[in-house]
Amino acid sequence: MTDTFKTAVIGLGSMGYGIAQSCLRAGFDVHGFDVVTSQMERFQAEGGAGGDLAAIAGSLDAAVIVVLNAAQTEEVLFGDNGIVPAMREGAVVVACATVPPEFAREMEARCNAKGIHYLDAPISGGSAKAARGQLSIMASGSSAAFSAARPVLEAAAETVFELGETAGQGSAMKAVNQLLAGVHIATMAEALTFGMTQGVTPEKFVEVISKCAGTSWMLENRAPHIVAGDYTPHSSVNIWPKDLGIVLDIAKSAQFSAPITAAALQQFVAAAGMGHGWEDDAAVAKVYARNAGLTLPGEE
Amino acid sequence: MTDTFKTAVIGLGSMGYGIAQSCLRAGFDVHGFDVVTSQMERFQAEGGAGGDLAAIAGSLDAAVIVVLNAAQTEEVLFGDNGIVPAMREGAVVVACATVPPEFAREMEARCNAKGIHYLDAPISGGSAKAARGQLSIMASGSSAAFSAARPVLEAAAETVFELGETAGQGSAMKAVNQLLAGVHIATMAEALTFGMTQGVTPEKFVEVISKCAGTSWMLENRAPHIVAGDYTPHSSVNIWPKDLGIVLDIAKSAQFSAPITAAALQQFVAAAGMGHGWEDDAAVAKVYARNAGLTLPGEE
Repeated sequence: MTDTFKTAVIGLGSMGYGIAQSCLRAGFDVHGFDVVTSQMERFQAEGGAGGDLAAIAGSLDAAVIVVLNAAQTEEVLFGDNGIVPAMREGAVVVACATVPPEFAREMEARCNAKGIHYLDAPISGGSAKAARGQLSIMASGSSAAFSAARPVLEAAAETVFELGETAGQGSAMKAVNQLLAGVHIATMAEALTFGMTQGVTPEKFVEVISKCAGTSWMLENRAPHIVAGDYTPHSSVNIWPKDLGIVLDIAKSAQFSAPITAAALQQFVAAAGMGHGWEDDAAVAKVYARNAGLTLPGEE
Repeated sequence: MTDTFKTAVIGLGSMGYGIAQSCLRAGFDVHGFDVVTSQMERFQAEGGAGGDLAAIAGSLDAAVIVVLNAAQTEEVLFGDNGIVPAMREGAVVVACATVPPEFAREMEARCNAKGIHYLDAPISGGSAKAARGQLSIMASGSSAAFSAARPVLEAAAETVFELGETAGQGSAMKAVNQLLAGVHIATMAEALTFGMTQGVTPEKFVEVISKCAGTSWMLENRAPHIVAGDYTPHSSVNIWPKDLGIVLDIAKSAQFSAPITAAALQQFVAAAGMGHGWEDDAAVAKVYARNAGLTLPGEE
């Protein structure tokens, strides 16, 4: 037994890797896991630990799950090699993937039945903020779950929104945020390329619109990628068919009609269909540019 | 002959009235005109002038046109009682309505043929900023047009974007801004009401999302109207079928497909169809609320 807080970060993609780094900086004993073994090796070269997840699960204070979706989250927690049955009573699962609120409530109930706390804790902020420990976390869960997860929240987040005492409220707010963020990226691309047809250059677009009522957080963050012709994936096109798909699934279940979200989703699907799925999500502009015969900055 | 700058403001709606007030504060001789005579009387009670537009047209330094659209602009300038033929050489028309860039170029040519300068000068910022002389103006035109219009720009605007040496570039940027602003308002309404179906209150929506990546200028400005249940029209629903319609007309002419704009436009049309056309544009949320059986704040 040691006093050092012991955590596993499962999923070392751009967000999970940053959380794992932040936990390391906080002085925790951090074990990082990913199906991409090169990410695990990179993490170990930075001072992190690896090991056999099944063997260490019983000694964890917290398991931070930063996988892609609900199916992967369930597999990690309760699949063939699921960790929850092996975890000690009073430990906490911090679930960071974007998932339906109902799924979060189900996972909370199944974890609690085994004496494990569950914090519904989807994240926002992008890979750069993840690496600096400055994420926003939209969290909900019991006060015991918050207490057990507190070291992780303090290490990884600049802002923790405490959104309720049961799982689901965090995921609900995340879905709301993703609806807006996804639509705003696609709308930025629609407006930027529309402007090009009228002689407004991408540079001028960013310079003027970012100071006008038409601006958004996503416009200011993503439009410069188009101006620079740089589609290095900070957040990829492929995120959006997934996340806006989750939003529309939840909406359909609630008999809520979301026509703008549906229109935006189609533009990301088209961008993926054009082969740009693993580029930065600003590449959704390429759908508009190709349709209208425009040449974006950096293209031949 | 006097040294006092003499201007007419034609169109005393919420934006034009503010511009007229700003010109008064700057010490100009300001004549205000509107088809709604009560607005003219109100302006005269505040120290403005009225009179017979045809009689004073020849002595104006600047005519500021703040009507609803291109058709009204053309009527004021070149209709049966159009002012341009009566204006003195070297005076300037400052055209503030949202119009197609091509229309602005046509008006410039027709004014110039009569020796009148034309500044393509659409405005942004809302009625409160108009009243304080803090508008943003997206202007383009010859340097002579800018010089002649300078006193008006300085009186009415906090920020003047100088977007090019011919008419059209100002209107192009305004169309880009309106595309974004209109979509962002409707998307805010879609996200806020979607959140309500998942237990996210409108208050919590504003509190959390305004600090997250899903925020926009319009969300921060308009969502509080929904929280307050206050649909006093700072900018009305009816603006958007008009302005997004202009955007889509321009887009169609350029063979530019704008599916997200088209989806947002339909939501404003539905809001007008529900009878909310003269309410604040945040009332587009009522379309979503009715479809989903939700009760917005302030509704019974």
